[in-house]
Amino acid sequence: MTRTYGITGVASGIGAALAQVLKAQGNRVVGYDLLETYENVDHFVPLDLADKASIRSAAMATPWMLDGLCNNAGLPPVADQAAKILQVNFTGTRGFTQAMMPHLNAGASLVNMASRAGHKWHNNLDQIKRLAGLQQLEQIARFVDDEAIDPTRAYNLSKEAVLLWTLSMTEEMVHRDIRVNSLSPGGIATGILDDFKKAFGMQMAKNVERAGRVGTPEEVAKIAAFVLSPDSHWLKGADISIDGGMGAFNMTDALGLAVMLGPDKGGTA
Amino acid sequence: MTRTYGITGVASGIGAALAQVLKAQGNRVVGYDLLETYENVDHFVPLDLADKASIRSAAMATPWMLDGLCNNAGLPPVADQAAKILQVNFTGTRGFTQAMMPHLNAGASLVNMASRAGHKWHNNLDQIKRLAGLQQLEQIARFVDDEAIDPTRAYNLSKEAVLLWTLSMTEEMVHRDIRVNSLSPGGIATGILDDFKKAFGMQMAKNVERAGRVGTPEEVAKIAAFVLSPDSHWLKGADISIDGGMGAFNMTDALGLAVMLGPDKGGTA
Repeated sequence: MTRTYGITGVASGIGAALAQVLKAQGNRVVGYDLLETYENVDHFVPLDLADKASIRSAAMATPWMLDGLCNNAGLPPVADQAAKILQVNFTGTRGFTQAMMPHLNAGASLVNMASRAGHKWHNNLDQIKRLAGLQQLEQIARFVDDEAIDPTRAYNLSKEAVLLWTLSMTEEMVHRDIRVNSLSPGGIATGILDDFKKAFGMQMAKNVERAGRVGTPEEVAKIAAFVLSPDSHWLKGADISIDGGMGAFNMTDALGLAVMLGPDKGGTA
Repeated sequence: MTRTYGITGVASGIGAALAQVLKAQGNRVVGYDLLETYENVDHFVPLDLADKASIRSAAMATPWMLDGLCNNAGLPPVADQAAKILQVNFTGTRGFTQAMMPHLNAGASLVNMASRAGHKWHNNLDQIKRLAGLQQLEQIARFVDDEAIDPTRAYNLSKEAVLLWTLSMTEEMVHRDIRVNSLSPGGIATGILDDFKKAFGMQMAKNVERAGRVGTPEEVAKIAAFVLSPDSHWLKGADISIDGGMGAFNMTDALGLAVMLGPDKGGTA
């Protein structure tokens, strides 16, 4: 049975790799992006997540009912773009998802691309909720000024918001017979890796060294394809870290978990 | 290419379902359990995780090198079994895993069955570390007395320990070219579901009602099979909740996340 999946940010990086994996599995792909592409895409729809009119048109231009949608498009932490990062990565993605509801089949799987960079949401709950109350780019620009949010913080905040938004809509989606999950990649070799290296510096370099290498878009795409597929259908409201162990290394250090290995390992294994 | 996977607790529940899924995918299965079974099992090895000698023999009796091992065997929260629950679910499982290291191929995937019941580990870090320092059943029995641990707490503690142990060994496993992840099912329809209902009461009933039903062993098994497979190979030190949304519902309530849906949903969607 042919299934149809939508992917935002399909022209490059993880989105392009996901289109390739899904096509190789025999699925049909609707690709959404600013940049036109037909590689591994059965139908292309232009989409600018910073533009409300574009979001509405893209949803309306969706040619087939979808069995799943991967909200993958996002901006990295680059200079002078804080408001736009928040708009594209969170507010616009949320708006696009709402607009896409009539285009999703029963049983459809939504996959939101979050990030390991969003995993410290516990420390920022109030700020995340303030962001969630905004809709317009001008409101977001004022919020960025008022709260002195730099691009790195904007990126992290946008992903914190994606994680909590995913949790918050899980129950409504269950009622609609749609399911939603998030993925949290860390340190992936895409065209925007240099932006992350600049933004996250030494911490990221150390993580990559311990993991042995950065991850590849294909490695994330294979997991995204599984979460889109019916085989994972009891996964709802889950977040999956895809980071080659980087999160576990950091948790082990921070919490002193070497003792968990047992007395005969002397906590030094 | 035929791959070979080991499963503990293969005679029933999620273990039996996983054997079926892996066999259907063309893999070879080595099954470990107290109860002898040959259903979907190419080779059966008796294993009592409460018995050190049995753990050693079972590892030695493993007939083929494994491409993955699912540490699935575990006791539910039943009366008068607190020490044994800790021993089987955590200490014995950890010992068996250490004994199995020489039987794992390069690239092998370890999957530890944790539980949603272990997700409150943040509150119990010191107790979990004290447990991790114990090896012998008599030590564990004394610990259970000293800390007044009832069977429900023992179950939760055993799963908290499995989660943190998984994190703690991620880096060592990377160095061995083995990877390890955990799964956290919640509310699954196995033979031990009634034990969980008794132990967790109303909270669990409410979660199941909101999710619409309990999950099935097959639903967990399909996800376990994916995490065992090479397609998920960049997953390391990750924990995946498999609960039909129950964790997300509880987080949304506890953190007041309805606002994340946005102003036009009025936080009431």
